Order: sequence, then structure tokens, then C-alpha cells
Amino acid sequence: MAKNLFLLPGDGIGPEAMGEVRKIIAYMNDAMKADFSLDEGLVGGSAYDAHGVAISEEDMAKAMAADAVLFGAVGGPKWDTVPYEVRPEAGLLRLRKDMELFANLRPAICYPALASASSLKPELVEGLDILIVRELTGGVYFGEPKEIIDLGNGQKRGIDTQIYDTYEIERIAGVAFELARTRKNTVCSMEKRNVMKSGVLWNQVVTETHKRSYSDVKLEHMLADAGGMQLVRAPKQFDVIVTDNLFGDMLSDVAAMLTGSLGMLPSASLGAADAKTGQRKAMYEPVHGSAPDIAGKGIANPIAMIASFAMCLRYSFNMIAEADHLEKAIATVLDKGIRTGDIMAEGCRQVGTTEMGDTILKEF
Amino acid sequence: MAKNLFLLPGDGIGPEAMGEVRKIIAYMNDAMKADFSLDEGLVGGSAYDAHGVAISEEDMAKAMAADAVLFGAVGGPKWDTVPYEVRPEAGLLRLRKDMELFANLRPAICYPALASASSLKPELVEGLDILIVRELTGGVYFGEPKEIIDLGNGQKRGIDTQIYDTYEIERIAGVAFELARTRKNTVCSMEKRNVMKSGVLWNQVVTETHKRSYSDVKLEHMLADAGGMQLVRAPKQFDVIVTDNLFGDMLSDVAAMLTGSLGMLPSASLGAADAKTGQRKAMYEPVHGSAPDIAGKGIANPIAMIASFAMCLRYSFNMIAEADHLEKAIATVLDKGIRTGDIMAEGCRQVGTTEMGDTILKEF
Ligand SMILES: CC(C)[C@H](C(=O)O)[C@@H](O)C(=O)O
Ligand SMILES: CC(C)[C@H](C(=O)O)[C@@H](O)C(=O)O
Repeated sequence: MAKNLFLLPGDGIGPEAMGEVRKIIAYMNDAMKADFSLDEGLVGGSAYDAHGVAISEEDMAKAMAADAVLFGAVGGPKWDTVPYEVRPEAGLLRLRKDMELFANLRPAICYPALASASSLKPELVEGLDILIVRELTGGVYFGEPKEIIDLGNGQKRGIDTQIYDTYEIERIAGVAFELARTRKNTVCSMEKRNVMKSGVLWNQVVTETHKRSYSDVKLEHMLADAGGMQLVRAPKQFDVIVTDNLFGDMLSDVAAMLTGSLGMLPSASLGAADAKTGQRKAMYEPVHGSAPDIAGKGIANPIAMIASFAMCLRYSFNMIAEADHLEKAIATVLDKGIRTGDIMAEGCRQVGTTEMGDTILKEF
Repeated sequence: MAKNLFLLPGDGIGPEAMGEVRKIIAYMNDAMKADFSLDEGLVGGSAYDAHGVAISEEDMAKAMAADAVLFGAVGGPKWDTVPYEVRPEAGLLRLRKDMELFANLRPAICYPALASASSLKPELVEGLDILIVRELTGGVYFGEPKEIIDLGNGQKRGIDTQIYDTYEIERIAGVAFELARTRKNTVCSMEKRNVMKSGVLWNQVVTETHKRSYSDVKLEHMLADAGGMQLVRAPKQFDVIVTDNLFGDMLSDVAAMLTGSLGMLPSASLGAADAKTGQRKAMYEPVHGSAPDIAGKGIANPIAMIASFAMCLRYSFNMIAEADHLEKAIATVLDKGIRTGDIMAEGCRQVGTTEMGDTILKEF
């Protein structure tokens, strides 16, 4: 049965990066008899330009129906002044929310060939392999009220609401514990329970979930601010980190930067497994943004997008061997000293987007 | 006229660190004819043990009446299970809120002698001098509703509310711009306007405040997650960072860790200037916590507490020469290779809390 992939390249370097994934998919269909069927839509600024919204109803429906969505990147100065409701990010947030992609997996790994590119001392990041499990459909991103009220007298009030229910915390904790079992069996949960009531509940529910079903996994709790510190001080102390939507946004960006591999890091956003089929809705996207400054120049690094597709093979299609193989191809190309401009280093050979994609495909 | 200082040493290493500041104050009163008058109270776990609350009404009144408050640290495992309303942090939060200390100044400086202690490559942090201006009386720390509701069926809901009014953003932006003028004249404002309505308002009000009264200062805007990344990637790009209460909490901890001088960094929390007297309510505290694991052993590093007192001299009493002098004494002692255990390095001499305080006093 055909595996339906829906591609949303988006803005900036998104389309260029996605182009390289298309090649890999075509190769898999041709040479490996994989049966991927592709469709493509618009999201972000490019959807706004075409339809006046950050994603059309038609494309939303396609995303909902697909076996997996591959997402590029959204945003750019061109759309900085469009109304809040139709800003590029609104497309991404709607996809996450409507597809109920509550579990965002953000691996922060340090490619050995790139350890020296980290701003941290190499010994602190060599071999780094953290998985941040970020709650993605709750918290301050979606809670209501979320508004700006005019109070008169030249005063306005901006309001956002952080809300977490027990079941939301339970299910993301479950994902973190399950994944920890396939790794070093350790979870660190981060919140601000000393200041936030949602943090108090978060802490309680993670603790209870652990006790009830995952007491074989080592569980630690850390305040999110201390967690940020510890990530910078000694990142290798962590295995799986589970945290809320906003802290996850901040902490995963810090973690990504530590690796020296920013622009290289993929992510997976997963929904709940269907009770009958076991299938999960899923979307895969690079952690990096749309990088409008280098868009269209053929110099963008497609590795994060390709690595996101590897996560897709792993999590949506259980094609573990192929995923391993693709990830290894990326590491091999880096080991050989092939680099795009963003990760260029002395003694390496600089290539553009297309050549990087071709070289990875050759190793695949 | 006597300068009234109210000391709240708090828990853990707070009292030990405060002891070294007492010596400096005594010296200033004796040898320099400064006229400090001291009173002392309880806060945090020690207040809870004595009064069942995180700060008593009597001590709150004294803090409100003082010319400046010196605060040590609060918290420890002993009080991990006390009710939320009287947890140690509640004392700190009430002081900030009732004294209206809306402006939290957190310098992240890298003492040259300690650059190699940073987890970042030395060239990235040598000479680092950032000032984080954190809003301290608003946002998700204090917004209502802030509660856990029982929804029945085993489900609870944790709620926190992020609220910012125009005037709150205006006044903290004003502080940041004023301080930038005494430094490199550059402010970077951080929020998540792509996700939060309070971030949209924050961005607007900072922009308008800049245009209206501070257009001579260079202003930049950055998303808070990108800001966390940039702090790790290239911290020296920043001069003054202005941000909200929660982002300020996270970002200032990351910045503190970068310097390699964590445990050495002071902070000032300031209220508005009185229209008549020009006086501001103010509280000074180390960025580090109560470090219960090393409390009472005589090994804690008192430098952050002493540097906080230097900020007190500067901001509450306009004793600029004395503040400069005290800060220089700290740097000199470090240059001479005198170290407490937390910052010990090869070839240095390790000392305890008291000897560190004495040595700084000797250089003062
Ligand atoms: C683009 C933005 C809305 C998004 C977020 O804040 O979640 C991004 O920063 C991310 O981390 O995926
Ligand atoms: C102790 C805690 C309440 C406090 C905060 O979150 O503000 C601390 O982390 C700080 O940064 O001063």
C-alpha cells in the first residue's frame, strides 16, 4: 500500500532543502521499490501570498489525511507585518494543534565531525546525544484567553494563558519514558513548580506516571532555569528531557546550539497512536528556521531536512534499517569533510545544497 | 543621616555569605565613617520554621521601610513539602511584589581570571559584559488566575496567566534604555511575539518607547528562543538585554553560566524613583541559590553576596567610588589566585568563606 507523504516546503530555504529529500524519495521508489506517493501544498508566507491565510483548508485536509507530513520552514521579513492571525507561524501552529501532534521529539546530537564547531569546549559536547521531548499542543501556546485588550487611557493589556490538564502531562510523560527505555533509561523532567501552578501539576503527574507504569526508568526533576544552566554547564548529564511547550522551545534551541550542529537537527511531531490501526499522525521538520537571508542561493544546508525524513522513516513507517542507513550516510559525508557554508571548516570542501544532497544520496 | 539596611540572609549558604558583607559594612562604618545602620530578619525556610510563613508581616514592614534590603538565598530540601503558599520562594516573590521591585538588573560579566572556567571557549567569553534587565513584578509569576482546579474523573487543570500592561513594559524598557546609555548604548529586547499576545504588546511598547524617548540608543528585537541560542553562540554581541519575568529567569541563568563566574554574580532589584525624594526601593541578592549541600561548612563563595552589596552602594546610595573600589577588590583577589572551592583552578590557593571575605576586605 502506498505511503502518502504530504510535503509542505514553506518559505525561505524550505523549498531548496525539500528538493533534496524529493531526490531521496525518488531513489527509494525507483531503486528500493519503496512505495511513497507524494503530494505538495503551501504553508506560511507562501500560502498567505496565494490564499491570504497561513494554510488553506484544502491543504489542512491533505495534511490530516496523509500518512506523514514533511514540513520545511516558514516566515521571513516579507510577512513581518501581516495580521497576527495569518502570520506564517499560524500555519505551523494550526498543523500541530489540529493534527494533535502533542509529542515533539528533538534530538540534540553532536556529529563527531562537527564537535569543534560548538561554542562549548569540545570535550563537553563530543558524543552528546540528548533527546528533548517537548509537549507541543498545550501550554501558553494555545491557552485562552490569549488577547490584547484596550484598557483606555493609552493602556493595553496583553494576556496569554498557560494551561495543562492531567491527561496532557500523562501522555507526554509516557512518550518520554517509553523513549528513555530505548536509550539510557533516564528522564529529566523540567518545569518551574516554584512559581507556576501548572509546574506543580506537571511535577505531580510526571511523578505519578513514573510510579504507576515506568518505575524501571530513572526519573529526575529540575527547575527549568537550572536546566538551562545545566545544559550549558554539562550537557552530557542528560538523556531524555521532558518539558512543556514554552520551556521546550527555549531549551531545545539552547541544546541545538550546543551541538555545533544547528542547521543539522531534525524533529518529529507525533500524535497519539490510533486505537485500531496503531498509526500516528506525524509531521517532520528541521529545527532551523527559514533563513530568508540565504534563501534561493543554492547554499542552504539540507541535512536537517534529510535527517527529518530519516526520523519519518523510523517513526511513521518503521523502516528502521533505512533510517539508520540514511543517518549513517549523513555522518559519512561529514566525516569526509564535505560541508555547506554554515558548517565549513578548514581543510573541508565547500559545496552547495544540491551537491550536499547528491553526496548523501550516493552514500545512501 | 543613617542609611538603613535590612538584612535577610535566608537559608542554606545565605547566612554565611551575609556574614562577610557584615564585616565590610562594619569596616565602612568604622574606618570610612559610613553611617550604615543594620537590622536583620528571617525569610524563606528559616522564616517558615520560626513563624509558619515565608516572611512575617513584621519583617515585610521592615523591608518596606528600609533604604535597601540585602537578601541571601532561600530554599532547601527540608522545605520541599511545605504548602505552596508558604514555600521559601513565596517570601522572595512577596518582597519583589510588595516592594514593587519591577526592574531586576543581572550583570553577566566574565572575570578575566575565570574565563577558562566557562564551558564556552575562552575567546567567546573573555571580556564578556552583558546586563540583563528583567521585568520582575509581572508576567506569569503573578498573573491571575493561577490555580489548580479539580475537574473530576481524576483530571486536574493547572493554570497560570501571563499578563503585561503597557505601563509595565514602558517602565522596564525605560530602565534598559537609560542603563544602555551608560554602557555600549545598545538594547536587545526579547519576547515570543510569534506565539504570545503579551509578546506582541511587549514588542510594540518597547518600539514606541524607543521612538518617543530613546532613539539615540540602538534597539534590536529577537525572539526569546533565538536569543537563548545567540547567548550560547556569541554572547559578546549583546550589551543590554531587556525581557519579561519568565524569559529573564531562563536567559539570565544561561548567561550567568556562560561567564564561568556563576556563584559570583550579583543582582539588583529596583522600584520606581519616588517623585519627591528620588529614592527607589531596592533589594540586592546573589544570582546563585541556597546551595543546601554545602551550607554550614564554611566553604561557600561569598563573592556574589559581596558584589550585590557593591551594587547596593552604586544604585541605592550613589557611592560610586566605593562600589568601584569593592568590585576592583574582588577582581584583584581573583587575579591573585585566591579561590573558594567552586572556582578552584590549578595553581590557585583554596580558601574558605571567611578567608575569602577577609582577603577582599584587605584589598578594599
Ligand atoms: C516558529 C515558532 C512558532 C516555533 C515555536 O515557537 O514553536 C519554533 O520556534 C519552533 O521551535 O518550532
Ligand atoms: C527562586 C525563584 C523563585 C527565582 C525566580 O524564578 O525568579 C529564581 O530562580 C531567580 O531567578 O531569582
